[in-house]
Amino acid sequence: MTAPADALPVAVDAMGGDKAPDAIVEGACQAASELGVPVLLFGERSYLSRFSDVPGVTVEFTTEVVGMDEDPGRAVRVKRDSSLVRCAEAVREGRACAMVSAGNTGAAMASALLRMGRLSGVARPAIATVIPVPGSTPTVLLDSGANVDCTPQMLVQFAQMGQVLASERFGIAEPRVGLLSIGEEPTKGNSLVKEAHALLAAGAGGPEVNFVGNVEGRDVMTDHVDVVVTDGFTGNVVLKTLEGGVKAVVGGVLSALTGSEEVKEAAKAVLPALSPLAHELDPDTYGGAVLLGVNGVCVISHGSSGPRAMVNAVRVAHHAVRDGLVARVEAAIGSTQAQVAHR
Amino acid sequence: MTAPADALPVAVDAMGGDKAPDAIVEGACQAASELGVPVLLFGERSYLSRFSDVPGVTVEFTTEVVGMDEDPGRAVRVKRDSSLVRCAEAVREGRACAMVSAGNTGAAMASALLRMGRLSGVARPAIATVIPVPGSTPTVLLDSGANVDCTPQMLVQFAQMGQVLASERFGIAEPRVGLLSIGEEPTKGNSLVKEAHALLAAGAGGPEVNFVGNVEGRDVMTDHVDVVVTDGFTGNVVLKTLEGGVKAVVGGVLSALTGSEEVKEAAKAVLPALSPLAHELDPDTYGGAVLLGVNGVCVISHGSSGPRAMVNAVRVAHHAVRDGLVARVEAAIGSTQAQVAHR
Repeated sequence: MTAPADALPVAVDAMGGDKAPDAIVEGACQAASELGVPVLLFGERSYLSRFSDVPGVTVEFTTEVVGMDEDPGRAVRVKRDSSLVRCAEAVREGRACAMVSAGNTGAAMASALLRMGRLSGVARPAIATVIPVPGSTPTVLLDSGANVDCTPQMLVQFAQMGQVLASERFGIAEPRVGLLSIGEEPTKGNSLVKEAHALLAAGAGGPEVNFVGNVEGRDVMTDHVDVVVTDGFTGNVVLKTLEGGVKAVVGGVLSALTGSEEVKEAAKAVLPALSPLAHELDPDTYGGAVLLGVNGVCVISHGSSGPRAMVNAVRVAHHAVRDGLVARVEAAIGSTQAQVAHR
Repeated sequence: MTAPADALPVAVDAMGGDKAPDAIVEGACQAASELGVPVLLFGERSYLSRFSDVPGVTVEFTTEVVGMDEDPGRAVRVKRDSSLVRCAEAVREGRACAMVSAGNTGAAMASALLRMGRLSGVARPAIATVIPVPGSTPTVLLDSGANVDCTPQMLVQFAQMGQVLASERFGIAEPRVGLLSIGEEPTKGNSLVKEAHALLAAGAGGPEVNFVGNVEGRDVMTDHVDVVVTDGFTGNVVLKTLEGGVKAVVGGVLSALTGSEEVKEAAKAVLPALSPLAHELDPDTYGGAVLLGVNGVCVISHGSSGPRAMVNAVRVAHHAVRDGLVARVEAAIGSTQAQVAHR
């Protein structure tokens, strides 16, 4: 009898991320002890060897590191013994159930794509990011940067994959899928969006996709929609714009509350009330983005990930395996592919 | 001797906006008394007649109103006696120095374009919006929605027009102009951005454009850049995403600070410290977007504009006339057109 897939360890790229390896390894060890999920750490011998006795942690040594700003395609082709590429390889070889990296996003994507392969029928894998919504369920945004130039058909597949993720990760029965545009009417938007709207409205995503029409930028951080579909250029801009906007406002609030000694003193009484919000808005809370459309689970964490982000990333990866995320994505894409073939 | 252009009144569309006509007319009257700028109000007789004696205010009666969700092209063609179209006409006829509307954005744009005409050499007018940056000079974002599908050449002109506005409105000597992309390297972005980058880097915007390369969504609300250039689809998404993000965070802060009676009491001491930030983030503070590239000054205010937004919009319009914004835009575009012609 074969062990279930989620009994396998989660492969973690110890060398990827602005705070690697310290924060990454600390988080991975924490994940093993707190979640009881075994982790398989890939990284440099000189650093990792001391962690070989940590319960639930296995280490494998690699000789190369992909830099945060390195050209992804080249790095993955040339640095075959990098911690990042070896993570993806471990998933392909069936020695790990999923991979997690806070390193070079493009290289993580390329490793996963090259080593695990694309799911049958998927035109292009997409990065799905989770956007916090204060007081409510987060919104899934995809594509967040994998594909800068998209076709309407690709957006339809993003809708299919996104609804699977929202249902798997947040238990939403019929996630509301919106298409990011600049007005609610189907006639609003650029040519890509107008064509994608027509396809989605005609049911091209299959009966599983609960398409609610166009949504706008202002809906992303609200409860109006569960999945926001867009091309990877716009999605990445939205993600970083929100990051910058939230930072500017939070920074403004904090600097106002520390402006004078009097205010600072008074603020002490209210700051604890703000901490749940700070927790909700912290990207570390969500553990990272998921690359959808590849034949394996690949979680790409924020470059600035700390230990808690890593614990959450391992949890997200482990749950995705347990819930059969990959098979569900494959089924969603396959259902409409079959439909197309039968026509 | 002809009176200087800025001695002419600013035409205000009394019927446009979610809070029209009350808030609009209140703001226009306030502008006349506070700023000493004469205003020419266009709107329905039944409402406006009572304002005909207000000092500095002239009223002209119109019989039609363009709805907020009406098709812009059709509305402008058919409703020739609407308050919106009449505003634009007053500018063309030299009876007003500028127009201000908080109504249907597309229709305001179309009226300005059809009645005032496009500046020679301008491929497509663009909407320039002002994004608040807490503690610093705002960022000019364009195009914020006039042109959903753009060419690289259009983005070059947006850079030229944006730098003129940043210099005119905020007195920045050499505004830093960035191209919105998803990474700093010139190789990052979709095909539109890559081509526009190449043109701008080669100096296609002329010596006046201080091109600092690609910027990202997270830079928009910071002091890293003064003008952010993008296509109208992405720009509109950014604008609304920021609006939603700021609202979500501010809403989260306010609901946390009113969560319990104790916190509410303590918060009383800190709320006054937050009010300058609230003022900075309030869209009413900036008075509206400017349509650049048409032969006249057209300020398009937020649909939700209140009286204060109107005062600021009239001020912005009046200053733009005083500073010769239109002539400066024409000169900036003309300088590179001439260059092209000489090659």
